[in-house]
Amino acid sequence: MEEEKAPLLLTIAVLGGTGKEGKGLAYRWAKAGYKVLIGSRSSEKAVHAASEIMELLEGSSSVVGTSNLEAAEQANIVVLSVPYAAHRDTLESVKDAVKGKLLIDVTVPLVPPKVTKVQMPLDGSAAQEAKAILGDDAQIASAFQNTSHELLLTDGEVECDVLVTGSSKEARTETIKLVEAAGLTGWDAGPIENSVVVEGLTSVLIHINKQYGSTHAGIKITGVSSDE
Amino acid sequence: MEEEKAPLLLTIAVLGGTGKEGKGLAYRWAKAGYKVLIGSRSSEKAVHAASEIMELLEGSSSVVGTSNLEAAEQANIVVLSVPYAAHRDTLESVKDAVKGKLLIDVTVPLVPPKVTKVQMPLDGSAAQEAKAILGDDAQIASAFQNTSHELLLTDGEVECDVLVTGSSKEARTETIKLVEAAGLTGWDAGPIENSVVVEGLTSVLIHINKQYGSTHAGIKITGVSSDE
Repeated sequence: MEEEKAPLLLTIAVLGGTGKEGKGLAYRWAKAGYKVLIGSRSSEKAVHAASEIMELLEGSSSVVGTSNLEAAEQANIVVLSVPYAAHRDTLESVKDAVKGKLLIDVTVPLVPPKVTKVQMPLDGSAAQEAKAILGDDAQIASAFQNTSHELLLTDGEVECDVLVTGSSKEARTETIKLVEAAGLTGWDAGPIENSVVVEGLTSVLIHINKQYGSTHAGIKITGVSSDE
Repeated sequence: MEEEKAPLLLTIAVLGGTGKEGKGLAYRWAKAGYKVLIGSRSSEKAVHAASEIMELLEGSSSVVGTSNLEAAEQANIVVLSVPYAAHRDTLESVKDAVKGKLLIDVTVPLVPPKVTKVQMPLDGSAAQEAKAILGDDAQIASAFQNTSHELLLTDGEVECDVLVTGSSKEARTETIKLVEAAGLTGWDAGPIENSVVVEGLTSVLIHINKQYGSTHAGIKITGVSSDE
């Protein structure tokens, strides 16, 4: 089945795009017609992940693997999907490259082994830490922390809404477009300070999975239509 | 229509039970057959609220109004539903009375006028503040922060799940029973530290209500059955 591609001119860099979550997002955006750059500390691994995605999409899209820095430099929108342990270093290494661009932070600051307990960084959340590193004039949004990566790499419906927080209304609106392009429902969840709720919700959902024997606990917003 | 009453012997005190949220919970628990004590700083107001609820229930239940302290002393389970500004004072005034009892904190630490922005107390959340005041051996749970009070005072279905955090598994399990008695779906959402997510979610839902023109935004857990 041939899907219609929207004429999108934007390039999205997924830093840490060799990880499961990043790869799933890259797959969905490439499928929606975006040009996607997979970034990694190892360009070789990035090239490999890009070709994996191209194979899944049967070559009809544009996915290129490169270094995190080169991906950030060449993209219009930069998505940060690295393990929390690499969060600060990665941000500092691409700080100049993301100036004036939207940075979407996908990082969940889990502290192993107690991943079912909310344990936020000193700045309040990973997203606020990103803001502290990139500076107050950076355009930062935070999203996708609660989405199961296994579902992203399939074409099935993901039964989990995406709460989008951000440093400005514009950052949130732009991010919600990318949420929808990935086939999910996004909600404007308020200022970047609210990211603590969304990042922390991941620990709550992991706890629920353990307690109730599930693997893909998620959330849906009720009582409101997102089309209004 | 006569509803069957379970033979419940527990007495629940709702401190701040003259407020909208507290009154709604008192109504639902009295209807389920619990003996309910409405507590307030003003016994007079508590007596008035109790008689309002008795009227709604057509006198078939036991709802009594009294002071916060007396309510806490006479109950088996104590529910704290005061405005955040009265949170610390109320807890200190009933500290001895709640020893050995389950305390369920319903408080949302909103900081007006910016109620759409998550702004947690220094201890991390209202529930952790309660724990700091009552001591490490206190049995504390945290719940009902996301539930619209207007829906509680009706007999309709509330389309919002209740995330229950608590200082022990027992505290959470006992609280989930009360959630179900109130006609809602409750989830074990983990340790008391996770209450920051649930309390903060209230600001996110208020933000969503403002953004999307709704009045009762809520959440549902997806991808898992609570009956397992």
